[in-house]
Amino acid sequence: MSTESEPPKVQEEVDSSSQSISKKAAKKEAAKKAKEERRKEAEAAASAASALSIEEEGPLANNYGDVPLQELQSVNDPQTGKWSEAVSGREWTEVGALNGSLKDQEVLIRGRVHTTRPVGNKLAFVVVRERVSTVQCLATVKPDSVSKEMVRFVRSLSNESIVDVIGVVSVPDVEIKGATQQVEVQIKKLYCVSRAAKTPITIEDASRSEAEIEKASKEGVQLPRVNQDTRLNNRVIDIRTLANQGIFRIQSQVGNIFRQFLLSENFVEIHTPKLIAGSSEGGSAVFRLDYKGQSACLAQSPQLHKQMSICGDFGRVFETGPVFRAEDSYTHRHLCEFTGLDVEMEIKKHYSEVMDIVDCLFVTIFDSLNNVCKKELEAVAKQYPFEPLKYKPKTLRLTFEEGVQMLKDAGVEIDPLGDLNTESERKLGQLVLEKYGTEFYILHRYPLAVRPFYTMPCHDNSLYSNSFDVFIREDVIYLRGVNKSGYVTGMNSLPIVEGEEIISGAQRIHIPEFLAERAQACGIDVKTISTYIDSFRYGAPPHGGFGVGLERVVMLFCGLNNIRKTSLYPRDPLRIAP
Amino acid sequence: MSTESEPPKVQEEVDSSSQSISKKAAKKEAAKKAKEERRKEAEAAASAASALSIEEEGPLANNYGDVPLQELQSVNDPQTGKWSEAVSGREWTEVGALNGSLKDQEVLIRGRVHTTRPVGNKLAFVVVRERVSTVQCLATVKPDSVSKEMVRFVRSLSNESIVDVIGVVSVPDVEIKGATQQVEVQIKKLYCVSRAAKTPITIEDASRSEAEIEKASKEGVQLPRVNQDTRLNNRVIDIRTLANQGIFRIQSQVGNIFRQFLLSENFVEIHTPKLIAGSSEGGSAVFRLDYKGQSACLAQSPQLHKQMSICGDFGRVFETGPVFRAEDSYTHRHLCEFTGLDVEMEIKKHYSEVMDIVDCLFVTIFDSLNNVCKKELEAVAKQYPFEPLKYKPKTLRLTFEEGVQMLKDAGVEIDPLGDLNTESERKLGQLVLEKYGTEFYILHRYPLAVRPFYTMPCHDNSLYSNSFDVFIREDVIYLRGVNKSGYVTGMNSLPIVEGEEIISGAQRIHIPEFLAERAQACGIDVKTISTYIDSFRYGAPPHGGFGVGLERVVMLFCGLNNIRKTSLYPRDPLRIAP
Repeated sequence: MSTESEPPKVQEEVDSSSQSISKKAAKKEAAKKAKEERRKEAEAAASAASALSIEEEGPLANNYGDVPLQELQSVNDPQTGKWSEAVSGREWTEVGALNGSLKDQEVLIRGRVHTTRPVGNKLAFVVVRERVSTVQCLATVKPDSVSKEMVRFVRSLSNESIVDVIGVVSVPDVEIKGATQQVEVQIKKLYCVSRAAKTPITIEDASRSEAEIEKASKEGVQLPRVNQDTRLNNRVIDIRTLANQGIFRIQSQVGNIFRQFLLSENFVEIHTPKLIAGSSEGGSAVFRLDYKGQSACLAQSPQLHKQMSICGDFGRVFETGPVFRAEDSYTHRHLCEFTGLDVEMEIKKHYSEVMDIVDCLFVTIFDSLNNVCKKELEAVAKQYPFEPLKYKPKTLRLTFEEGVQMLKDAGVEIDPLGDLNTESERKLGQLVLEKYGTEFYILHRYPLAVRPFYTMPCHDNSLYSNSFDVFIREDVIYLRGVNKSGYVTGMNSLPIVEGEEIISGAQRIHIPEFLAERAQACGIDVKTISTYIDSFRYGAPPHGGFGVGLERVVMLFCGLNNIRKTSLYPRDPLRIAP
Repeated sequence: MSTESEPPKVQEEVDSSSQSISKKAAKKEAAKKAKEERRKEAEAAASAASALSIEEEGPLANNYGDVPLQELQSVNDPQTGKWSEAVSGREWTEVGALNGSLKDQEVLIRGRVHTTRPVGNKLAFVVVRERVSTVQCLATVKPDSVSKEMVRFVRSLSNESIVDVIGVVSVPDVEIKGATQQVEVQIKKLYCVSRAAKTPITIEDASRSEAEIEKASKEGVQLPRVNQDTRLNNRVIDIRTLANQGIFRIQSQVGNIFRQFLLSENFVEIHTPKLIAGSSEGGSAVFRLDYKGQSACLAQSPQLHKQMSICGDFGRVFETGPVFRAEDSYTHRHLCEFTGLDVEMEIKKHYSEVMDIVDCLFVTIFDSLNNVCKKELEAVAKQYPFEPLKYKPKTLRLTFEEGVQMLKDAGVEIDPLGDLNTESERKLGQLVLEKYGTEFYILHRYPLAVRPFYTMPCHDNSLYSNSFDVFIREDVIYLRGVNKSGYVTGMNSLPIVEGEEIISGAQRIHIPEFLAERAQACGIDVKTISTYIDSFRYGAPPHGGFGVGLERVVMLFCGLNNIRKTSLYPRDPLRIAP
């Protein structure tokens, strides 16, 4: 126990007892008393624990009840409780694994009370939910196992409580509409592991699709719609919906395939610091803090450090980690903190080597999601319907000039050396879909002027650059946000975003003198980025890379309308909790 | 181009020309001028690019030289340069793949000039290094390919420059001592891709072991020793040493196996926010910042959010991500930012389920490192010799009481309800090694009073808790740092460390009333942790988890003496760069 939590009176007693007690003795005495206190506290905790247990009376009382805390603390020692005895030697079966092949077998399942429905005094239905699966369970009075009191107990269970059910699997003749599993469990024993208080939002309301609400509305019924903020305020309940269970398992799979693919291509995973030295030049999009008396900020991308790692002979590197943006953006696709998937690699001959990685990487991710996450994608689509992403085994690549020409042919005139705005990006996406039948493509050879200063110009025309953007569903995958003028955050940091994010991958300039020259030409004080430029002085291989926002990939693949749906605990300018 | 970098004079001209020009027209005019500027900038960049190219004269001049930037921008278009022509249609062979089976074959390799050695006017040796491999190359004057000028060019190459070498593989009769590969490359062509400036530290000095320095010293030769700070100040050079190349590939593998093992056990990867609401209660170990006008801090662990995810029905979750500690610790094993490997999972019956995961997970990681990273471990051991870690296929588990008894039997008396200090931890590690022959073991059933308030007490004796620490090499794996009194950082955060880090894994209290009671007993204001407590109100499964510091695992597995050796760009109270 640290000194902070010692009861002050202990100290006082020692102080007043005698002047002859040395400081050391006083300290010893205090420690002894503190130890006594500690013992008392722990004993109080133990008695509180047993006070929470609930005992029921009745002849078949052993078959149901609330599990006392003491049993949940350990079931391995000599079994003293009815739950401990009931589950002893048994394995839990996952609700999702319940099917006809288990007919007439006794199973033990754990899940939440999704709904309960009483039928008269002697019967109660309870739908038990575990992650994305639900099963209908049935408690009916039977002289040898189920008492009237037990049925009453089952009916009294609050939704979202967690229960252990032991019962026999049966296969009804008719389809079960209210559950995913097409079997029933005839309850023999049921114990409540955790009681739920009344939830501020219900899973039923939070799981409803827009279509259901509209359909009911046409029939004159107003069903509740849970808005985004209410969901996020009650995230611990909201993420229990089937759609959310699906979304975050899909997100986990994207991260997994991202890494597995890159590891198989000889990339090394690195972890770069998020705390970066730097002061006030960085513009408004930087979170600043005091670092032991030095001014510091949170990294807006691992750009500097991943390039340093290439100069440090790692050859090919990747990182998945948080990226911080203090922008005042209140759109459906901006977050103040998101998960960046970043890649940097040596180039032997041409920046198309980087596009080759992007191409294979994303096709592998998409293929894998469609194969491995079928159930999860269905769960998402049930609440938020979407068409599967159209993409090709070999990703379409267009040059920026070709894109401009396609727009021109369709009557859209844009600055051939400017950037695409959201509107022309969308239009181009439509044209590409019509002409090539894909919603996923790469646009490369962007005008140099719209890319950050460290982008390598093209060899044949320095108005263009060895860079690319990746488009998905007429939108752009959130990547590195880099503004055109190349804002910098200080000595150890790099150009950052202000304004509209763009995707960007590119070959970087690896020659320090040329880099300094380009920085200067873009109006950047070279002194503020000396660490960055110096990294290239001791031999730097030609290299390039790209970055992607994990939440954005999941959002666009699933055709969702808000980035907050794919961030577990999102952060935006108005939200820093929970 | 954003407005910030537009030349101010454009704006002035527009302002002074006429009052009749509307704002819109002025804006258009400014945009036009800015575009013009952009074009000029890009053209300047292009001319700068070509100015960097170096041309050499001579009859066999095509066989060597510096590769001009323009060629490095693209080699795919009609080949105009000598390097482009030379590498056209060729694939690079990795230096590590060069062996006798390639005898008499022509290869193309890319690597750094590790060392050069002239022999007379007509011969030069150059050792080329690629990551952890080196090969000796030989340029000797030959009338049809290698000119005297070319040999001079080779000799003039600065160390750490990056070169492309085309040559024929030969197998010398004698052992090659100065390179890892036992073949030579007879140079036919050699191009310098990137010139290195003189490095502030040399790879040779940075790669030297303590033993070599001492041996030389005994022979009266004082070899340079590169200290830790100099290394970190020049990290981009320092990480090129074989030992460092090994360390960070081992680190990458630890992260990979950590995730692969957990995914195979049905865990879901999550990403929790590092920006946390909270103000000043958190003690000195918290980095604070302003978040859009709200006070916020950087997460010291994902404890709150990983437990929320369990309450949100994810079942089993893990995260790898940065963890921030603002402690003023200047020891060999503290960092202000490190990579946390965090796990949380539902418990069905007993906290030993969590220890089962720890056990299998680490044995899998250790086995994998020994199998997959042999070359990397050798590279580390060459500079920093260490004994392989002693561990068992099934990890030893001792209760805290058993540990105390072992110490007592060895004459070391400690408080049976207090914590182990570093000295007693080390002593116990020695005793365990002697008795059980393992350097990796789990100590569990810690006294409740030395664990954070949210730790589940034991069912049979609430002076103890369902918790554990994991020991490796008489040290403790850096994990969650949690102090005894359970400091808190605010509404949305959780108890954090002050002082000595300990390992901790445990079953957590999942009953809100009991949790509040324990918090109070530990002197914590329950109001400040209401978000945390409320997470458990809507049904919470019994659960537990643990966390590990990635850098610490690598450090202890490789027996290294400083955590800064296993952090790519370490952050400590005195260091926030590079």
